Amino acid sequence: MGKKRVMLPAKDVDLSAVKYEPEVIQAPHLTGLVLKLFIKIIEAPVIGPAIISYLKKQNKMVETLRNTVIPEAPMFKPEFPPQDPEPGTFLLEEDGKPEERVETALKCLPEYNPADSLNSELTEFRYWKIRDFAYAYRSSLVTPSMVAERIIAVIEDFNNEKPPAPLLITFDAEEVRKQAVASTKRFEEGRPLSTLDGIFVAIKDDIGLYPFIAKGATTWMDEVRSTNADAVSVSRLRSCGVIFVGKANMHELGMGTTGNNPNYGTTRNPHALDRYTGGSSSGPAAIVASGLCSAALGTDGGGSIRIPSSLCGVVGLKTTYGRTDMTGSLCDSGTVEIIGPIASSVEDVMLVYAAILGASPADRISLRPWFNDVHTTDISDKCEDILNQLTKTYGCEVVEIVIPELHEMRTAHLVSIGSETMASLNPDCEDGKGTRLTYDTRISMALFRSFSASDYVASQCLRRRVMHHHMEIFKKVDFIVTPTTGMTAPKIPTSALKYGETDMQVTGYLMRFILAGNLLGLPAVSVPVGYDKQGLPIGLQLIGRPWGEASLLRLASAVEELSAGSKKRPASFYDVLKTN
Amino acid sequence: MGKKRVMLPAKDVDLSAVKYEPEVIQAPHLTGLVLKLFIKIIEAPVIGPAIISYLKKQNKMVETLRNTVIPEAPMFKPEFPPQDPEPGTFLLEEDGKPEERVETALKCLPEYNPADSLNSELTEFRYWKIRDFAYAYRSSLVTPSMVAERIIAVIEDFNNEKPPAPLLITFDAEEVRKQAVASTKRFEEGRPLSTLDGIFVAIKDDIGLYPFIAKGATTWMDEVRSTNADAVSVSRLRSCGVIFVGKANMHELGMGTTGNNPNYGTTRNPHALDRYTGGSSSGPAAIVASGLCSAALGTDGGGSIRIPSSLCGVVGLKTTYGRTDMTGSLCDSGTVEIIGPIASSVEDVMLVYAAILGASPADRISLRPWFNDVHTTDISDKCEDILNQLTKTYGCEVVEIVIPELHEMRTAHLVSIGSETMASLNPDCEDGKGTRLTYDTRISMALFRSFSASDYVASQCLRRRVMHHHMEIFKKVDFIVTPTTGMTAPKIPTSALKYGETDMQVTGYLMRFILAGNLLGLPAVSVPVGYDKQGLPIGLQLIGRPWGEASLLRLASAVEELSAGSKKRPASFYDVLKTN
Repeated sequence: MGKKRVMLPAKDVDLSAVKYEPEVIQAPHLTGLVLKLFIKIIEAPVIGPAIISYLKKQNKMVETLRNTVIPEAPMFKPEFPPQDPEPGTFLLEEDGKPEERVETALKCLPEYNPADSLNSELTEFRYWKIRDFAYAYRSSLVTPSMVAERIIAVIEDFNNEKPPAPLLITFDAEEVRKQAVASTKRFEEGRPLSTLDGIFVAIKDDIGLYPFIAKGATTWMDEVRSTNADAVSVSRLRSCGVIFVGKANMHELGMGTTGNNPNYGTTRNPHALDRYTGGSSSGPAAIVASGLCSAALGTDGGGSIRIPSSLCGVVGLKTTYGRTDMTGSLCDSGTVEIIGPIASSVEDVMLVYAAILGASPADRISLRPWFNDVHTTDISDKCEDILNQLTKTYGCEVVEIVIPELHEMRTAHLVSIGSETMASLNPDCEDGKGTRLTYDTRISMALFRSFSASDYVASQCLRRRVMHHHMEIFKKVDFIVTPTTGMTAPKIPTSALKYGETDMQVTGYLMRFILAGNLLGLPAVSVPVGYDKQGLPIGLQLIGRPWGEASLLRLASAVEELSAGSKKRPASFYDVLKTN
Repeated sequence: MGKKRVMLPAKDVDLSAVKYEPEVIQAPHLTGLVLKLFIKIIEAPVIGPAIISYLKKQNKMVETLRNTVIPEAPMFKPEFPPQDPEPGTFLLEEDGKPEERVETALKCLPEYNPADSLNSELTEFRYWKIRDFAYAYRSSLVTPSMVAERIIAVIEDFNNEKPPAPLLITFDAEEVRKQAVASTKRFEEGRPLSTLDGIFVAIKDDIGLYPFIAKGATTWMDEVRSTNADAVSVSRLRSCGVIFVGKANMHELGMGTTGNNPNYGTTRNPHALDRYTGGSSSGPAAIVASGLCSAALGTDGGGSIRIPSSLCGVVGLKTTYGRTDMTGSLCDSGTVEIIGPIASSVEDVMLVYAAILGASPADRISLRPWFNDVHTTDISDKCEDILNQLTKTYGCEVVEIVIPELHEMRTAHLVSIGSETMASLNPDCEDGKGTRLTYDTRISMALFRSFSASDYVASQCLRRRVMHHHMEIFKKVDFIVTPTTGMTAPKIPTSALKYGETDMQVTGYLMRFILAGNLLGLPAVSVPVGYDKQGLPIGLQLIGRPWGEASLLRLASAVEELSAGSKKRPASFYDVLKTN
């Protein structure tokens, strides 16, 4: 029995008086055999629920969801107030052809000059962009088949590594060659399908890529599910001529933020091979950061695109809830998850985004104590620096705001994503597949199972409150700017490779700034802005208004421009377009 | 661990091949001290959850919600496909003035002839209708104050009864007199506010009626909640000149179908004083059936308007989800509950409905094995008889259909309403109020607490399926016709008066035909059509298309017409308009 709390109606909360409360997560950090033992206890009757119950109380979940009168009605999905059209942006027809949308998006880009990249002496490292490939193919400097052979060679090397650290967990060299031959032929005949023709893209393992089965990096999903067609966003890329290299590795079922994966091996961060990529889209971010693919599709239900993009130094876009079609992904009916692109530059993110759904690509910005609540000040300093430059160069005004009820937002998100995941996993778990999941996943599931149905409803009341607060904030600012993650790429303990790892402190740092994008469905993008003292990438997150992808990507371009000089070659980088 | 079931996508279910599966509910029938003991066990740790868990398994809830792959996305609230406007109906402006809507609705009624009721020798019993009062007031045959005194006298008698069996649980004679004096004065001055001026209406205790506190027939809700204004629907009636007699009794928190209430006493069925009224709107139905009030407002989240209307021989309208404004009621943010009117005739239901929200007042109809799954064949025979008469007199065509997945519909409804109730009760229960609820309520709550968040999500997937099936059926029929309840008014065991009662068999019979109205938000109306061999009223339920209140009430009028000859005076009936 606990004391009753009564929340003030959201509309009566004085946003100017809100103080930032640092998040304190109480949970043991476990890896290896200790983790294996812990799972025995947590899944046991009586004692297991008792431990979960204790941990939930320690982390104020019971107080937030059961002892609190929340005056708002539940909001079961992000509901946005009506939005004005974004000023000065190209309109991409959502029901038009993907190839045509890509060409419209191209028109929004600055003119392409091959001298800038392909033929010039580069003073600094840069990734090949999609337009570099497009130019190289059209100038016959190289063919898709030639690039394919380089990529295949690297992937095969990767797949022979011990311990395994795969970028792709489903890979068929012949399948890649076949696509590359077809694309090469189209160029020979002078009829490429679009600017994306011959561009190499990886697809996260929870998104359908025919003929492979979407298995969410589990060991058994292929036994209970089939994939009879491409996911909608994949089929849109295919009609643009994209070459799919395979299914990228991920944290099992997306239920983790490090990318740890004892099933297939843990993908390594290309910037430091003893570190995590971040997750859950570990493979997609790493394969782009490695220079092997121009882009990848990931899913983001709690930072799964933005966190690994930030840690691997690439760009990741979390689209507005409802902007991308989820058909054909494992999570096709949740209330927090979207499909979005990861690429090495904002420009490339725009082009892929245009193909899979909508819009092309300064203003008033925000935040502070939250902003500075990070693991090392390298992160906040670097992000601060970019804000200052935005003010100086683009005349942006920085407005300091504190977002209320961040703890409530985290709780509501955890209950929503956890319960929706359990609802879809239950039949297979009850059928015996549950014990064939990683320990890490099973610990999350023990927690998720403890959520009551009324917790779920209460969480949706919180969603309505937090939406109100954010919409009030967007009356004062155009973007909310934060570091993407509260820490750079964490080290991988050796013991974590076989049995996995659970470390809620790390999860807390990684997800600290992430959740408005998910619980409220807001669009957000992670842009690399520099490196910490250890040389690890730092990402800046821009959160936009609902449906505001176009202005968001425009600001992201400006940020990218400001930090362009500092890009470092990752330890593991492959120059697949090398033409000599 | 259980066996996995995989449902066929709803759109692939062959509706013509579906067989009716009778509902079997397994739960002990408990009253009195045994019930009090049972609550000790069910609320104890370990053993309590174990019993709940066993009962849920027995009733296939685990199978339905956790072992089944449901291919549909969750539908968190009723979402209706676009509906064509109803043919040949008056459009009542939802944003217009309530008084004006009432006058528009009046124009839809057959001409009023006072000789038909007030001055004629009645060959059979009938209730005074709202237009009878309106005529009597305008002809100075009687004044609202005179009627008020009769009602006050009866209510005071009721409130002195032992054991208590109140119609109203909050009643202030002076408050009623004050309203009546004001109304009488308006008539004297020749400026009544509307046809509803001087009409006596009771308000269910979970709907706000200023200055009384809405307490849902608990003993403590007034300690934690205040009522600062009328509920929206009440204020609309007030602006029409309605006189409110007080707050009507109900099953505690609406969590039961009999109307049993050890807190304030159990309201008796006016047709047989040893029987239940049905619930949860026990007081509203009984006060109308007793002839004391022309109408009452009730709430219906699982039959709470239709069940007591059926058992007390009056008319009850469950409106389309979203049609009436829930602001100011205890359940103002659920996904299954609405506010609707109870009155003695379809005509009066129409007039009150017009005031509180929308529209005014034959075709193809349905069903069979479900139809006959009742406690005594009196019910199905009588309902069948009405169907035959509708065919003969109005040329209605009866189409036999079987609705698939009735078990799933019941489970999804129970989880939705239970979880939404718990979400709003949790803070007070955790604060110690839980043990001050009736045993009956506490047993329901022990069950509701056991629902997991993923059960809630799975239930919303079921809602989408069942919506699909019903929309398919509405392509073939215009109305779904069933008995309102599977049994007539059940006897009240003496032992149930003090400690309450739980009898899931009775609940099962009472709710058998109810739930499409709630889970899917469809409009439905209960019309009395006759009596069983014991002289107890039988209700016929008409379920309409979404937003189809107008055609629904037109058919209800026809049904009322066909069964007009058989109306019986309830044992407890008060002739408040007697003018001599």
